Amino acid sequence: MSGEKSLKVALLGAGTVGAQTARILLDDAQALAERSGVSLELIGIAVRTVDAKRDVQLPAELFTTDANALIDQADVVIELLGGLQPAGDYIARALSRGASVVTGNKALIAAEGARLNALAAANGAQLRYEAAVAGAIPILRPIADSLAGDHITKVMGIVNGTTNFILDAMDSTGAAFADVLAEAQALGYAEADPTADVGGHDAAAKAAILASLAFHTTVSSDQVHTEGITQVTAEDVAAAADAGYVIKLLAIAQKDEAGVSVRVYPSLIKRSHPLASVRGAFNAVFVEAENAGDLMFYGAGAGGNPTASAVMGDVVAVARQLAAGAPLPNGSADLPVNLLDFDQITTRYWIGLSITDQPGVLARVADVFGTHGVSIESMIQHGGEGSEAASLRILTHLGTEAALRTTVEALEALDVVNTVTSVMRVEGN
Amino acid sequence: MSGEKSLKVALLGAGTVGAQTARILLDDAQALAERSGVSLELIGIAVRTVDAKRDVQLPAELFTTDANALIDQADVVIELLGGLQPAGDYIARALSRGASVVTGNKALIAAEGARLNALAAANGAQLRYEAAVAGAIPILRPIADSLAGDHITKVMGIVNGTTNFILDAMDSTGAAFADVLAEAQALGYAEADPTADVGGHDAAAKAAILASLAFHTTVSSDQVHTEGITQVTAEDVAAAADAGYVIKLLAIAQKDEAGVSVRVYPSLIKRSHPLASVRGAFNAVFVEAENAGDLMFYGAGAGGNPTASAVMGDVVAVARQLAAGAPLPNGSADLPVNLLDFDQITTRYWIGLSITDQPGVLARVADVFGTHGVSIESMIQHGGEGSEAASLRILTHLGTEAALRTTVEALEALDVVNTVTSVMRVEGN
Repeated sequence: MSGEKSLKVALLGAGTVGAQTARILLDDAQALAERSGVSLELIGIAVRTVDAKRDVQLPAELFTTDANALIDQADVVIELLGGLQPAGDYIARALSRGASVVTGNKALIAAEGARLNALAAANGAQLRYEAAVAGAIPILRPIADSLAGDHITKVMGIVNGTTNFILDAMDSTGAAFADVLAEAQALGYAEADPTADVGGHDAAAKAAILASLAFHTTVSSDQVHTEGITQVTAEDVAAAADAGYVIKLLAIAQKDEAGVSVRVYPSLIKRSHPLASVRGAFNAVFVEAENAGDLMFYGAGAGGNPTASAVMGDVVAVARQLAAGAPLPNGSADLPVNLLDFDQITTRYWIGLSITDQPGVLARVADVFGTHGVSIESMIQHGGEGSEAASLRILTHLGTEAALRTTVEALEALDVVNTVTSVMRVEGN
Repeated sequence: MSGEKSLKVALLGAGTVGAQTARILLDDAQALAERSGVSLELIGIAVRTVDAKRDVQLPAELFTTDANALIDQADVVIELLGGLQPAGDYIARALSRGASVVTGNKALIAAEGARLNALAAANGAQLRYEAAVAGAIPILRPIADSLAGDHITKVMGIVNGTTNFILDAMDSTGAAFADVLAEAQALGYAEADPTADVGGHDAAAKAAILASLAFHTTVSSDQVHTEGITQVTAEDVAAAADAGYVIKLLAIAQKDEAGVSVRVYPSLIKRSHPLASVRGAFNAVFVEAENAGDLMFYGAGAGGNPTASAVMGDVVAVARQLAAGAPLPNGSADLPVNLLDFDQITTRYWIGLSITDQPGVLARVADVFGTHGVSIESMIQHGGEGSEAASLRILTHLGTEAALRTTVEALEALDVVNTVTSVMRVEGN
């Protein structure tokens, strides 16, 4: 540490979040010092090329392309480059020196969180990453700290603003996925290459981080069963709406006696569920705990200013601990994880079928469910006169993923079923 | 402190929350020790009379009526008696000894928080009270810690479950206040003497605590402008619904260049606002911050298990800091508060009038607003044929409380106005 009353802060990255973080550090120094018990001195901003400094209204002398030299002078390193490398090497370098690190890098934490947390602990340094999940929403600290005396049983998050924007627009306008995606790209809510968002991979990284903290263990993003929203059709959205549901991409972490399950997929939830009212690009995380009951945390999931708010909250937390002179135990006992095979999880299915409309079809369809031990909550038929095809929507009770999947396979093989038009899961009570 | 690896915990009170807190301490000792870095030993439960021990399934030998003797042996005191005394003396006694305190006592913290915080700081002890506001919802720590690098501009909370239950039932059933109150009393959602809830006093204590933390200052409950919900009629609720609004009792803490305002009153908010969907006895706190934007925290606001969850989160936090051996700076610079006179605050009014339905009345009513510099957003007239009385609902733009109140006084004096049937404020964008 550089002195009793001042901490040297190095910033890596000067994109939207980085530039706003730098502005807060410079413009709000007085209030930050009062709240931290120590002053925060921004000693430099590492960028890939010196051109980057022209993008932002920040003092030119702060910029450098030598990240390593900057890191080696810092008490606190704020990493806002994103991506696995070189961010991972920079963070490891800082922690190895005993410098504390604040990052918003979800991909890195989801992939290497356990290694980096251990490195921090071994060097008496802090590693904080509130900004990695759900932008401005304080969710990681409430899970790790406020609920530390409780047992979390389930976390369900709308943690990707792009997909929520798309699904919400499909729900309110009736438009098709491709059209809404194009609109979202035009508005800047979706990337030119939207794969990470619409494929569910961004949400999977956040699901891994949420599960690790909620269950005091380590789950990495490659352990998350991940399905995106590219297969969700306007017909699915309309049929869900008819039945009183809305479709959301949920990042789910669940723990019961059998084990832990972490998964991302588009799900139906009832319109009366608090998550159903999360509109546009907003994020929300719904938490079920044994004593606390149901909680929800809602706010902006991305954007320069909201994410910078989360980063600065972590910076103040790091500064307070450094001012006190003693790192707290991180409290996250790293329990071994008993990760359930995806086939073992229990959920409810909502199945769309195109069937030939002839006498006895419903009975034959229902029989397939009974044979596989899956019970039906409701069956709704639309259309179909005489020999025309009709559509059928079936909502099941709870069943294992394996039983539900083999039921769908048997339905596909049934001669009166033209096609299985959609299969989606239902979450929430 | 009693030893390196164990903390002696004293519990004051064995009501619903106290009994559940004791059960968690006893049944969950292993997980709590892993998460705290130190084991927590419940050394006793102080109750007023030994009879109390028969109410709960807890070891009889833990009970004592000598609270002071128990406090004097403890490292951590959990105060769940409620009320100003003797709770205040017990907490002061513990803090003076350097023992840390966790409490859910909103009335005491709202009245004496500044003195008790100072006492804690002077003795190197911690004082935590997450359970005092909004039960299980982690709200105080997110405000004090996660948003420490941001500037909170407004907090609006539904922080009293009884009044939200009543207003929600009035909204969904159309029933009158008195009938719903009686039902709430029968269901156990309202006390036999409901004054503290329906009069807004419970919400005012929570507003004071929220304002103090959000603005790094000290506001006590007697500085909170407080109006309850007893004057809200079924007609108000129906008229609000017609206009796309719902009525909620809001605890509001607001800060702008002019100063700080803290107030509790029934308010109209748009049905599309996240607070509007908070149903039944649930609580929620909506936070607006400069960088974070809009956030909302939702959950159970009361009940033994949810409140015990918040208490135990604080106990683990205290234990982690004691395990680390160094108290953190509390970070809440106690800034002087520039509390606005209630007349100075700006808000929007929603005014109900009974008028004589004759030509020119609307113009004369509108003229009163113009004379007082208050501009009208909308005027809606219902009923009235010929000489019959009609009802008029007027929604204003922003005005100072003083201007709005003198406008209402002038309306009351107008010969074409029979009565001002209701005056309510409108919050949210």
